[in-house]
Amino acid sequence: MPKYKALISYDGSSFSGWQSQINSLSVQDLIEKALATILRVPMEIIGSGRTDAGVHALGQVGHFITEKEIETEKVLYSLNSLLPKEIRILDISEAPEDFHARYSATGKIYHYHLHLDPIMDPFKRKYALHLQHKLDIAELKAAASLFVGTHDFSSFANQQSQGSASLDAVRTLHRLDVIEQPGGIRLEFEGTGFLYKMVRNIVGTLLEVGGGKRLSHEIPYILSAKDRKKAGRAAEPHGLFLVKVFYS
Amino acid sequence: MPKYKALISYDGSSFSGWQSQINSLSVQDLIEKALATILRVPMEIIGSGRTDAGVHALGQVGHFITEKEIETEKVLYSLNSLLPKEIRILDISEAPEDFHARYSATGKIYHYHLHLDPIMDPFKRKYALHLQHKLDIAELKAAASLFVGTHDFSSFANQQSQGSASLDAVRTLHRLDVIEQPGGIRLEFEGTGFLYKMVRNIVGTLLEVGGGKRLSHEIPYILSAKDRKKAGRAAEPHGLFLVKVFYS
Repeated sequence: MPKYKALISYDGSSFSGWQSQINSLSVQDLIEKALATILRVPMEIIGSGRTDAGVHALGQVGHFITEKEIETEKVLYSLNSLLPKEIRILDISEAPEDFHARYSATGKIYHYHLHLDPIMDPFKRKYALHLQHKLDIAELKAAASLFVGTHDFSSFANQQSQGSASLDAVRTLHRLDVIEQPGGIRLEFEGTGFLYKMVRNIVGTLLEVGGGKRLSHEIPYILSAKDRKKAGRAAEPHGLFLVKVFYS
Repeated sequence: MPKYKALISYDGSSFSGWQSQINSLSVQDLIEKALATILRVPMEIIGSGRTDAGVHALGQVGHFITEKEIETEKVLYSLNSLLPKEIRILDISEAPEDFHARYSATGKIYHYHLHLDPIMDPFKRKYALHLQHKLDIAELKAAASLFVGTHDFSSFANQQSQGSASLDAVRTLHRLDVIEQPGGIRLEFEGTGFLYKMVRNIVGTLLEVGGGKRLSHEIPYILSAKDRKKAGRAAEPHGLFLVKVFYS
């Protein structure tokens, strides 16, 4: 049966996240409902991974299987007509039979935006975390560099992944760049894969370092402890963007 | 009595505009209410001009008069604590006795954002007009240049100003630049003053030119007709930003 890959962008502010959940409004639910309306059969779309409530996506990827071939341009147009404006399907293309949005992914890029001006920009209130205390950016950068490489990230993974064997928590972070931008900074994460809440837990820990509550040289010890309780709290979801999913 | 100047930014999406109106939620109302709570007396704030429902501001200016001197830093902080996050007071400073946010203004900058990609960016849905038809940007630029200079803008002013004498509709537009930006263009207006709905009426007319419904060389005739009915319809409010108000 034909398989399709969809590129999806959404403002996560008013959704319960990507994944279907009981009694909530998820991006996946809305896309599945719109697809079912167009194709007149129940539809499922599998995402590259879940994003939490409030987390945004510039380039989420999903795949779906249809009974027969579809006209991708027409379905793209119809989907965007049916979906709320917070969600846009940017592209639909045919995918190889063995393609899987989640299991075929070879890497991802996430960005986390921090607004550091004393007064929040009203246009960024849903798209960046506002920090009102002073941030030691040099120390934050030093800490960020210690996450780069291949590590067991158990200390930065929330329960959903923590039940699994230790090997499962090994991921490679290719880069964690701290980029200055108007009003604040952007943390750019690129890696082979990310555990549940890993980016937000790393950001939360980095903010504790930048705020003087921890020292950057504690990071290797937190990593080697493989204990979620040793790391900082998850940073709020609204600063986080899933930017890109890579496939080989 | 001491007079203060406030610099204000707001996301106009959920307000009825700047100006107080019966049975509506205006930015002015909310700031006056917050000021009254802090200073414990009824307060009035006069803006540089009204912005319509849905129009945004990066640098609206208002003035208010108090019975005695206030600590500007403290009032700034308290205002931002009381106001919804869509509205931020960016600065409060003492103003000369003869300062008036509206009558002392010597010029303004407005920006109007157009998104031209076939698929709307979900993060711009409230901050740019989405055009789905093709736009002839060269023709639009040619038409835009014909607005620059000193003209009677009666044909581009809605009723609120149209009742007044012809002399009142003479304004100088210093520039109307068409700037390309990711996903579309931005129209930058800088002038001595703007009549009611003038920017949106000019944008609406420019879009008719860019869409092939009018020719750029009609603009001088529309201007000289001094007749609102000769120009195009007002462009939607959500693409418009009041960027800066100038004072001598």
